Amino acid sequence: MDVESRIECALMSALVSSREPDCPPRLADAVQHAVFPGGARIRPKLCLAVAASCGASPSTALDAVAASLELLHCASLVHDDLPCFDNADLRRGRASVHKAFGERLAVLAGDALIVTAFSSLAEAGLPAERLPMVLATVGMAVGMPAGIVAGQAWECEDQLDLQAYQQAKTGALFAAACMAGAAAAGHPQPRAWATVGQCVGEAYQVFDDLRDVQGQVADIGKPVGRDQALGRPNVVHRRGVDGAHLYIGELMQQAVGSIPECVGKQALGLLIRAEVHKLVPKKDALHAA
Amino acid sequence: MDVESRIECALMSALVSSREPDCPPRLADAVQHAVFPGGARIRPKLCLAVAASCGASPSTALDAVAASLELLHCASLVHDDLPCFDNADLRRGRASVHKAFGERLAVLAGDALIVTAFSSLAEAGLPAERLPMVLATVGMAVGMPAGIVAGQAWECEDQLDLQAYQQAKTGALFAAACMAGAAAAGHPQPRAWATVGQCVGEAYQVFDDLRDVQGQVADIGKPVGRDQALGRPNVVHRRGVDGAHLYIGELMQQAVGSIPECVGKQALGLLIRAEVHKLVPKKDALHAA
Repeated sequence: MDVESRIECALMSALVSSREPDCPPRLADAVQHAVFPGGARIRPKLCLAVAASCGASPSTALDAVAASLELLHCASLVHDDLPCFDNADLRRGRASVHKAFGERLAVLAGDALIVTAFSSLAEAGLPAERLPMVLATVGMAVGMPAGIVAGQAWECEDQLDLQAYQQAKTGALFAAACMAGAAAAGHPQPRAWATVGQCVGEAYQVFDDLRDVQGQVADIGKPVGRDQALGRPNVVHRRGVDGAHLYIGELMQQAVGSIPECVGKQALGLLIRAEVHKLVPKKDALHAA
Repeated sequence: MDVESRIECALMSALVSSREPDCPPRLADAVQHAVFPGGARIRPKLCLAVAASCGASPSTALDAVAASLELLHCASLVHDDLPCFDNADLRRGRASVHKAFGERLAVLAGDALIVTAFSSLAEAGLPAERLPMVLATVGMAVGMPAGIVAGQAWECEDQLDLQAYQQAKTGALFAAACMAGAAAAGHPQPRAWATVGQCVGEAYQVFDDLRDVQGQVADIGKPVGRDQALGRPNVVHRRGVDGAHLYIGELMQQAVGSIPECVGKQALGLLIRAEVHKLVPKKDALHAA
């Protein structure tokens, strides 16, 4: 099975509890709506690529770890879109969860996705000695002091620590994708993988900022110009479009340069370059927009 | 250290990440506000009592398991109090989290508490072979298809399955408190402890229903008469006050009768009786109110 299919299967498998007859049906639908169809699935792909580069063979345990990262990412999108935060009506080209199912089910779907992410890690069947490190890594990426939830909470402070905000809101889960992939594969120093993930995550954030400034709703499936409207930091406002493209290139170099020793080091470097190139919007297409 | 102090210490220890300098300070305050000062801490007490009755000596690992249940309970209270659900201004005699910190930080504090509960399980230092069962038990109690989040989601359905609703919203975490205590203590059949927890949980729910009907805000620290106002089921409306008291007694009998074989079976039975008696409101005092 190819990586994309493995990730979709692992996500469906993690959410099988929502399909049991005693689950409230609208909660089940809201959770499915939040996860399928997905976006680029870049976090689980990165996790699996790191695990493979550490020499791990494909397994449902690794797929479950990868899927848990995507579930947490989806949870954060559902809660970020809530009326009290971004109040976004659109996500991935269709109604956001609160728009389709109401605010209450959006709160609960996000909660359920967080719980499911951790439950599916527990049930992944990882070697017992690796589970605590994988869990702690994933927990750190979403919790306090500097995971996704903390990143979002910086928006509620009078003084925004810009670097802490971006690192927590985006970088932390990318770093965890790499560290959890390495830990699940039995790499002796999973923490050494943090920089790779942080750099890929920051590149992805710049890409997202470019899309917000230059994209079309039809292309990106969510409203554009939200950062300016909501007064949120956007790297394109600081560096300009060309500067943002250059910066993505620098971050990719740094990511590749920081890959720790492992059997698949070279292949992973090529993969990261290829994936980042795929993400970067075509400049001319965007300028024409 | 007595049980109460052990639980408070474990809660503080689990939340130490919120006190790190890179945590957004208002999120840290909101999370602390949600957990301290606490209520009866009945779930963690039950968890530790079961672990002790299974022959486990006190340990920080057991305390962390107990604390994780309380963190999840607090998370559910914070999200239940949100404007889109109960819109409750009061909790434990002071402002609810959304009233004190705003809706956004209430959503995030709930999320952070869920994550922290699982992270602290991962870091509890449980024997590696027991961790997956403890995690799965706790996850089942809060997630889909029939944990707290699912229980709350029944409020969003056109047709409410009353038994599923109450079992999921209250019973599931009590059942998990018993099962997780047994699993963490190495009991060979932790699932056999579910009925004890479900009965104690249902007794506690009846007690809460009595307080809602008959209590005073000053005594119970949250608004009274909410069930009627919100059209929620309340056992006192069906059975009357005396019937509710009788029912608590029946549930306590059933709880004690279903304690599985273990070294501390008799002592646990006495403890459950004593704790339930403490909870039940003095009928005369309430009638006078």
